[in-house]
Amino acid sequence: MTTAVSPISPAGRLRAALGDATSSRLPVQAIGAVNAMAARVAAEAGFDALWVSGLEVSAACGLPDENLLGSRDLADVVTSLRRVTDLPVIVDVDNAAGTGPSAARYGFDLLTAGAAAVCLEDSRYPKCNSFSEHRAQGLADTAAVCEQIKELRAAAPELLLIARTETLICGGSMDDALARAELYEAAGADAVLPHSKDISGREALEAARRWGGVPLVTVPTAFPHLDRRLLGEAGFRLAIYANQLSRAALAAMRGAAGAFRATGAFRADQLAGVQDLMRVAAPDARACL
Amino acid sequence: MTTAVSPISPAGRLRAALGDATSSRLPVQAIGAVNAMAARVAAEAGFDALWVSGLEVSAACGLPDENLLGSRDLADVVTSLRRVTDLPVIVDVDNAAGTGPSAARYGFDLLTAGAAAVCLEDSRYPKCNSFSEHRAQGLADTAAVCEQIKELRAAAPELLLIARTETLICGGSMDDALARAELYEAAGADAVLPHSKDISGREALEAARRWGGVPLVTVPTAFPHLDRRLLGEAGFRLAIYANQLSRAALAAMRGAAGAFRATGAFRADQLAGVQDLMRVAAPDARACL
Amino acid sequence: MTTAVSPISPAGRLRAALGDATSSRLPVQAIGAVNAMAARVAAEAGFDALWVSGLEVSAACGLPDENLLGSRDLADVVTSLRRVTDLPVIVDVDNAAGTGPSAARYGFDLLTAGAAAVCLEDSRYPKCNSFSEHRAQGLADTAAVCEQIKELRAAAPELLLIARTETLICGGSMDDALARAELYEAAGADAVLPHSKDISGREALEAARRWGGVPLVTVPTAFPHLDRRLLGEAGFRLAIYANQLSRAALAAMRGAAGAFRATGAFRADQLAGVQDLMRVAAPDARACL
Amino acid sequence: MTTAVSPISPAGRLRAALGDATSSRLPVQAIGAVNAMAARVAAEAGFDALWVSGLEVSAACGLPDENLLGSRDLADVVTSLRRVTDLPVIVDVDNAAGTGPSAARYGFDLLTAGAAAVCLEDSRYPKCNSFSEHRAQGLADTAAVCEQIKELRAAAPELLLIARTETLICGGSMDDALARAELYEAAGADAVLPHSKDISGREALEAARRWGGVPLVTVPTAFPHLDRRLLGEAGFRLAIYANQLSRAALAAMRGAAGAFRATGAFRADQLAGVQDLMRVAAPDARACL
Repeated sequence: MTTAVSPISPAGRLRAALGDATSSRLPVQAIGAVNAMAARVAAEAGFDALWVSGLEVSAACGLPDENLLGSRDLADVVTSLRRVTDLPVIVDVDNAAGTGPSAARYGFDLLTAGAAAVCLEDSRYPKCNSFSEHRAQGLADTAAVCEQIKELRAAAPELLLIARTETLICGGSMDDALARAELYEAAGADAVLPHSKDISGREALEAARRWGGVPLVTVPTAFPHLDRRLLGEAGFRLAIYANQLSRAALAAMRGAAGAFRATGAFRADQLAGVQDLMRVAAPDARACL
Repeated sequence: MTTAVSPISPAGRLRAALGDATSSRLPVQAIGAVNAMAARVAAEAGFDALWVSGLEVSAACGLPDENLLGSRDLADVVTSLRRVTDLPVIVDVDNAAGTGPSAARYGFDLLTAGAAAVCLEDSRYPKCNSFSEHRAQGLADTAAVCEQIKELRAAAPELLLIARTETLICGGSMDDALARAELYEAAGADAVLPHSKDISGREALEAARRWGGVPLVTVPTAFPHLDRRLLGEAGFRLAIYANQLSRAALAAMRGAAGAFRATGAFRADQLAGVQDLMRVAAPDARACL
Repeated sequence: MTTAVSPISPAGRLRAALGDATSSRLPVQAIGAVNAMAARVAAEAGFDALWVSGLEVSAACGLPDENLLGSRDLADVVTSLRRVTDLPVIVDVDNAAGTGPSAARYGFDLLTAGAAAVCLEDSRYPKCNSFSEHRAQGLADTAAVCEQIKELRAAAPELLLIARTETLICGGSMDDALARAELYEAAGADAVLPHSKDISGREALEAARRWGGVPLVTVPTAFPHLDRRLLGEAGFRLAIYANQLSRAALAAMRGAAGAFRATGAFRADQLAGVQDLMRVAAPDARACL
Repeated sequence: MTTAVSPISPAGRLRAALGDATSSRLPVQAIGAVNAMAARVAAEAGFDALWVSGLEVSAACGLPDENLLGSRDLADVVTSLRRVTDLPVIVDVDNAAGTGPSAARYGFDLLTAGAAAVCLEDSRYPKCNSFSEHRAQGLADTAAVCEQIKELRAAAPELLLIARTETLICGGSMDDALARAELYEAAGADAVLPHSKDISGREALEAARRWGGVPLVTVPTAFPHLDRRLLGEAGFRLAIYANQLSRAALAAMRGAAGAFRATGAFRADQLAGVQDLMRVAAPDARACL
């Protein structure tokens, strides 16, 4: 809890950063942070914002990524992140449980917790993960999504609201995806995210080429070869690296546990120090080990 | 949420495992798990139990390790872990906020959350981390600790109660440490943990040689060269690897973020797959990436 | 936190009480308790069980009764109630957010919190209050409800599961209501509740006359003139007084605040003592006022 | 969740109200609200602010009033209150668990939850209720309290900070009470509260006569005959009615439950309607009952 309170609201700072990104043609870079350890790492590495990922938080909570996270699960994460950094926090609320009143609760609770932005997607309730092969995902009616946008905005006017369409993920056309994005902008979204799992990245680039509205957001999980400069020149103003830190952590924990199983001891070179752990929240801590 | 409910209580299974450890002279092995991802890793690697570490949870919450975690912070972690594994969960409650009624609340809340055991230490409130160089740590009066043991047991009779003495950490003598352990056993502790930061491990081994009471527990952070067989032959029945998974995760997240900063991209070989993340809570999940 | 842990599980005690009610033809009486104050009152007055009401908890949380309560909102209430009484706690989970995985989360989280039973209703997601005039409420497909029953049971096998049908509330026929109840019993429900808003009580009595399956439950909000003996002879084994304590509290708080506004002072004869408030959780407390 | 977000911060509005109270010589009136039902009643009755009482919240949670409430217990209440009213919320943090870092956590968490103010008292950890006859209560060292004030302010600069001294409660002199209040003002408190259990009210009036610093606050539980005008002329700027609504609710719930036990039915004239309960959070709700 070392953060001084900033004079500008979290949402205000994120809006300003999106403005700068328009001038510089270099997108704001947000990274998924599932707890304060990840937030500390993100801040040290110079990321501009944090992303509270439905997939990451579901995994941390031991829940499948199927519309099970409530606003309190997410708000607790936001509070933890904000204790160690004042980077603006963007929260993935999935479809916000699919109703207007539920969107209002997510908005109110997350604004209360200090979030700068929420990202609301148009998957039909109940959703499954965008990259899941298991189950067909449908899209919600646009009228219902627009109603959610309006109720969320009314309950949390200060939040920056990113509307994400799963049209392309669900096999819809680019025309449909952009038409949905336009409706969401008209309903009050501050930014739009036409999500894509096209690993070539062409789909994302085409969406950017054809879009002329509010700032454009991307989650390049499926097309990591599009780097910051390319994304920025294409027109994206915010790039969200949604789950890489948890994936690095998971791989490393498996490696460490595996080494222990194989040899009866952890490998010191694979572990940060006890002092590093202390310093996540207490930068001046010193350990005797 | 794939776990079938076991017919035996978590505490009952942990007691049985401690009994087996006495016969086999191979200690039960518990590992710190700060969320369900770590719990999944621990279960896969064959650990016998999970440890909810004050240091790890503090770091995850963005709080310094200074007696700031309440029972709800810890109970939320226990619930998350239990969603993906039925390994017994041992919770580090530090000094349980130093009073009898506060110990009762920790006990009741953590038994409610499904914990198998709590570990109560005799640091004087407020405590700091055992390995911190910053601040002198005092010991609580033994009468107050025994009162806490009794109130905790009354509030949560089923919990296995490990009493940890910080005598050696605070510069006290082995005689004093063992005298405290005896008092705590007499007050109702089911196991004792004379904590040590002696990196040679000799202190731990001497404590084990001289102890003849309830099962003995160790946290070998400072003496990792004492392996399972050595610890078991010395007389330990439970070895707690308190924070290695978070330290592995922290190092790996830093590595991944550093690679991204240096090159503009994450290194795929450092990351688990999206599917691996899904499978933490949904073992059959399949991703298209 | 004065409760000794009982040797029998909460669900076990509730099952036993339902069995006794069958012999005695006097239904188990549960009353809505929104916090530990209400639980203390309920225990003093000799009620047999507590009900965690969606309407009451929504009001306490400041949320409309429209499917907005998550499992954590409800679990917190269960934990508070259990701190002052060991009466079995029955939790109103509404439609459990309408999906199988969401029902599993409610079941797991509420069993963890120490609930004895949950009551799952077959309103279509999103639901509104059964007595609301505002909005048409639909019924969920029976297949989806049965799937929820199965997932809830799998995630929380020990919980007693009450299936509530809103058929009559939604204008459906008695035949349809009983057919749904039979399907839910076949899917694994331990008891059924055909909810009715018929203020004459005839609908409830007809349901009872025609039912021959698992124990029958009633919430006689709309027909309070049917007393315990009448309900028992009709065949009900559990009567839930869902929200009367909150309604008494609300009326009294209004009265007290109104008196203060009118006269500048509270009326002592309308207030319990400070000591009474202390004794909710500490029966021996004494105040000097 | 009907509240529009106000352009001014909660703390700013409370500061403005205290300023008005200085001109008008009529103190701001705050009333204890343990949940959103009470908050709705308080708003309807024209109170200016809400008080989150340690005693009331402890009773609602089923915990003795002995320093057991964590910041999350209190923050949840703040969030519930704010869903139905934008009255500024003042939170009783007792001694904030007695340390500087713990005071910082309370401050950060409660500012996050949307509190306008906190009230920090100088009882020695662990505290008991001010009106308890059971246990001797000591005072904390002033240096420790001043350190808490500074850490709380640093962690939550926007919060209005009320410092409460228990000197008179603990049998100390008026000189000592006022000297402590001066130290707390010098350390950064925005207002001071010299708590008194003198039922004549003379002690409170003397404190007010002799005080010349930051705005003065009173909790007139023990001297309700001092009305708003008298308190204002004496010099108080904020009067907190700490627990009357819970006491009214407790008495009424007992009355309702007693009537049911005696007659087998609730008395309709003692109960608010189902519709009233719905309207706590949804002012336009209509019930068919």
